[in-house]
Amino acid sequence: MKKIIIGVMGPGAGATKKNVDLAYKIGTLIAQENWILLTGGRNKGVMDAASKGAKSAGGLTIGILPTSDQSTVSSYVDIPIFTEMKSARNAINVLSSKVIVACGIGTGTASEIALALKADKKVILIDQKKETVNFFRSIGKNKIIITKTPEETIKKMKDVLKNSNA
Amino acid sequence: MKKIIIGVMGPGAGATKKNVDLAYKIGTLIAQENWILLTGGRNKGVMDAASKGAKSAGGLTIGILPTSDQSTVSSYVDIPIFTEMKSARNAINVLSSKVIVACGIGTGTASEIALALKADKKVILIDQKKETVNFFRSIGKNKIIITKTPEETIKKMKDVLKNSNA
Amino acid sequence: MKKIIIGVMGPGAGATKKNVDLAYKIGTLIAQENWILLTGGRNKGVMDAASKGAKSAGGLTIGILPTSDQSTVSSYVDIPIFTEMKSARNAINVLSSKVIVACGIGTGTASEIALALKADKKVILIDQKKETVNFFRSIGKNKIIITKTPEETIKKMKDVLKNSNA
Amino acid sequence: MKKIIIGVMGPGAGATKKNVDLAYKIGTLIAQENWILLTGGRNKGVMDAASKGAKSAGGLTIGILPTSDQSTVSSYVDIPIFTEMKSARNAINVLSSKVIVACGIGTGTASEIALALKADKKVILIDQKKETVNFFRSIGKNKIIITKTPEETIKKMKDVLKNSNA
Repeated sequence: MKKIIIGVMGPGAGATKKNVDLAYKIGTLIAQENWILLTGGRNKGVMDAASKGAKSAGGLTIGILPTSDQSTVSSYVDIPIFTEMKSARNAINVLSSKVIVACGIGTGTASEIALALKADKKVILIDQKKETVNFFRSIGKNKIIITKTPEETIKKMKDVLKNSNA
Repeated sequence: MKKIIIGVMGPGAGATKKNVDLAYKIGTLIAQENWILLTGGRNKGVMDAASKGAKSAGGLTIGILPTSDQSTVSSYVDIPIFTEMKSARNAINVLSSKVIVACGIGTGTASEIALALKADKKVILIDQKKETVNFFRSIGKNKIIITKTPEETIKKMKDVLKNSNA
Repeated sequence: MKKIIIGVMGPGAGATKKNVDLAYKIGTLIAQENWILLTGGRNKGVMDAASKGAKSAGGLTIGILPTSDQSTVSSYVDIPIFTEMKSARNAINVLSSKVIVACGIGTGTASEIALALKADKKVILIDQKKETVNFFRSIGKNKIIITKTPEETIKKMKDVLKNSNA
Repeated sequence: MKKIIIGVMGPGAGATKKNVDLAYKIGTLIAQENWILLTGGRNKGVMDAASKGAKSAGGLTIGILPTSDQSTVSSYVDIPIFTEMKSARNAINVLSSKVIVACGIGTGTASEIALALKADKKVILIDQKKETVNFFRSIGKNKIIITKTPEETIKKMKDVLKNSNA
């Protein structure tokens, strides 16, 4: 049986303290569900924090890297996949995840949310500002799920997984 | 001297009548400036209309296709580039264009705007609704330019090109 | 500490009985070394056999898929990475593997050997015919390693890993 | 009507004097047929020489670049397509060309020949050594065409184009 892969997307250098704290907690909870965490794999911001959280709970972590530069990989990524495709790898991130949660926003993360909707995936927006929610609802309709906390996020993920298996 | 390539991005099947009319006119004006038009290359919506407009004015048109299926190429594309990379080709669209204009919105177009901002390109949003403008301004700041008409769009493109050569 | 990822490349539909038998055995031995197996992920030929071998020995298996079609994934792949990039994903296969072994030959496998050499990786050619060995030696020089058996192949992988850590 | 695009592939830094001379002449003849030349776009070796030849005869030249670094583009490329996908862009080179000629050999060129065969394209090997011919014939069979001179190469291209339109 295939393992369940959950994508956590968010800014690298541009992540806020709150983004990072939420990402760490979400990573922890994903590992506790025995899901595999997938991120953009870099040693920065949301990617790094979610991976660190997942490892703290004994989880398995995948990182889809934009380059093949070993020095940019998060030390909390078990399985680095090197693409050398810069932002084009964002498409792989979302295609390989059953559900995506976006924690924080930036241009890269925005492209991932859009690509996930394009691929007909559900996207959870955690603690996002009004402009972000309004826009992605306008193009993503019922594929957009809004949450405030990591715990609520995990609950919504379970709902999505249940429905996709039904 | 390299030719100037301008990207026109917008929905395929989901394009409105107004999107298509604006795209056609923008394509015409781009060709009249002796710029090359670049689109997603498919025989639908904004891509097709912009290419048709450019050809009506004797321009040269490039299409970056998501597949290698000849039957999906706009008959107004002179140079089809086949990628077989689905939405990952959106990154190529924006990297290869000096300026991008987004005419209409959908998930693919949203990813292209985001990727263009990520690549530090100016993006012109023509006749976009408030949610779209507010969101992309929130992540793209002064890289976002707002226009209402094709003529104003061309004028803004000239400003961008002038500044990028300065 | 990052896990060690080993790539096993070879034909899908065009694999011979001998290719498949060797791939199965190599997969088994890779898992016994506690290395992770990476393949092209499809439910055919060498990819499928190597993954099946690795699972028979309790290993972890990654597949980098050319499409996002779930029905084409080997049932022995734990972690499917969906690229929707057709043969362009071959570059990812080799960039993500520490060492590559090519078992059997075809156009896809030939591209992977060439891309691995381009990325300065060692490539082990197991039980390959003279034309294949002669050509890749002519372009890959001392990056090409020739073996006859799975056991010899594992021994050569250990040499490569030892030298790359030195 | 779509323009006919012909791909000329070959080494960059590793090109020999003879590779470069042949590439220049082939580029010239391609332009004289009113075909468009497509190369890997860099300012080195076969890519640069073929583009220079095509421009000397008033042709149109496309380059599919591995990065988005303007300083690496051949000054003889009219239309640079920037991919930021390193060697994964090799797949695009061959998918976008009606026929491919390989002039000189190296790891990148070898991957392009293999990917072209995978995509069921004819590949012309001009003035290649025995190991290269023997190997690609062994995997590509009647898709491999052998030539000695630029003139013979153009003649073979015409045969391929005639048959593909029949």
